[in-house]
Amino acid sequence: MFRATLLTLFPEMFPGPLGFSLAGDALKRELWALEARDLRLHGLGRHRAVDDTPAGGGPGMVMRADVLGHALDAVPDDGRARLLMSPRGRPLVQRQVREWAAGPGLVVLCPRFEGVDERIVEARGLIEVSIGDYVLSGGEVAALAVLDACVRLIPGVMGRIESGTSESFEDGGLEYPQYTKPREWEGRTIPEALLCGDHARIARWRREEGERITRERRPDLVEKSAGGFPRSVNALDESSLTAKDEL
Amino acid sequence: MFRATLLTLFPEMFPGPLGFSLAGDALKRELWALEARDLRLHGLGRHRAVDDTPAGGGPGMVMRADVLGHALDAVPDDGRARLLMSPRGRPLVQRQVREWAAGPGLVVLCPRFEGVDERIVEARGLIEVSIGDYVLSGGEVAALAVLDACVRLIPGVMGRIESGTSESFEDGGLEYPQYTKPREWEGRTIPEALLCGDHARIARWRREEGERITRERRPDLVEKSAGGFPRSVNALDESSLTAKDEL
Repeated sequence: MFRATLLTLFPEMFPGPLGFSLAGDALKRELWALEARDLRLHGLGRHRAVDDTPAGGGPGMVMRADVLGHALDAVPDDGRARLLMSPRGRPLVQRQVREWAAGPGLVVLCPRFEGVDERIVEARGLIEVSIGDYVLSGGEVAALAVLDACVRLIPGVMGRIESGTSESFEDGGLEYPQYTKPREWEGRTIPEALLCGDHARIARWRREEGERITRERRPDLVEKSAGGFPRSVNALDESSLTAKDEL
Repeated sequence: MFRATLLTLFPEMFPGPLGFSLAGDALKRELWALEARDLRLHGLGRHRAVDDTPAGGGPGMVMRADVLGHALDAVPDDGRARLLMSPRGRPLVQRQVREWAAGPGLVVLCPRFEGVDERIVEARGLIEVSIGDYVLSGGEVAALAVLDACVRLIPGVMGRIESGTSESFEDGGLEYPQYTKPREWEGRTIPEALLCGDHARIARWRREEGERITRERRPDLVEKSAGGFPRSVNALDESSLTAKDEL
């Protein structure tokens, strides 16, 4: 079972949004488990201090390596990856999410303040992970994003139909536009190609639209993909259409 | 005042983690406001349906433009940007966060299922925003990330000392390593440059370390920055050191 252990100064933030909907249902069905541990319990002295001033000066506070070391060492080493949420980390991508979701779970250290003493990263082999190029008030919301992304991929969490739809994210393209009823709304119609009933034409339209949108919005994804255009994010797997379609 | 309005099928997810710590204190002090509106109230028929099957076929469900239109139109148009959280959106960056944090707030539509009918995006001028290249189970956790990033920058939310430390994120470099007491831990020492007491040398060491780490980890950020190396993320503003330092 996928087990998430959070090390945080705000254990009451968890499961938070992960207690509802898809992730929450899966938590109740024991398809995964979550435990939030309070870093303060490992704090020093009467005030249970977890941080101190930065060496070399400057504003803010830095979380102490010895305190974090105690907290990490109190989590049994069962082979789970140990993450440190940080804007300096490697950017999270779907391929990595998929790998973690297939594993035993994650131990996630959520920093606050100006970050953590660098020595803890080296000494405990933490993987620094960033969810994007912006600054959060702490690692907790970032950890929620990592876990939400992982949990939906745990076998049994999504129905089989849903889970087929995003297999190709890791190849990096963006999704084609979606439409549903009504056929006309505020004078805007559904593209004719989607209403023609010709599965091959629909698949072609979707592929072309996904490619066009990726090129327009994220040329960086096109550059990254080796050997041709990336498959669309969330693209309908063409094999899910009827077998006689020739594309 | 910065006002956040969330349109979601899970209003009970909010404020969630934003009810604690920095963002939660600021919420209690009325430095910002949050309102989560239930999309289900605008659903159709006895079952208050908000979605239907995708035009052209395929798995999953698509949120209806008419339902979302009603929900959006019920929010008074007071000039706030209207976001749609989506992996197809423009990647969130700190410069954008800073702009939104200085404005009147945000209206954020949180999709579930296979996304929304494309027509709502065009008809209501929604800004599609992605927090990163991975798939979440819905837009709610993504919205929490956007709001957490914005709220910490609202004047008065962070102390003046803290807020000085991340002014430069928008220029795109990564932060230098931080250290704090103890001076030696598990045989690992604090780099000598940080202990020398020479402010100019400390500032130079931090700048060089930030540059080295950015080059190693995120060459894409170096490429993106026009005219020289990006300033470090969260870098100490050198003006915060004593005025006599010559750098």
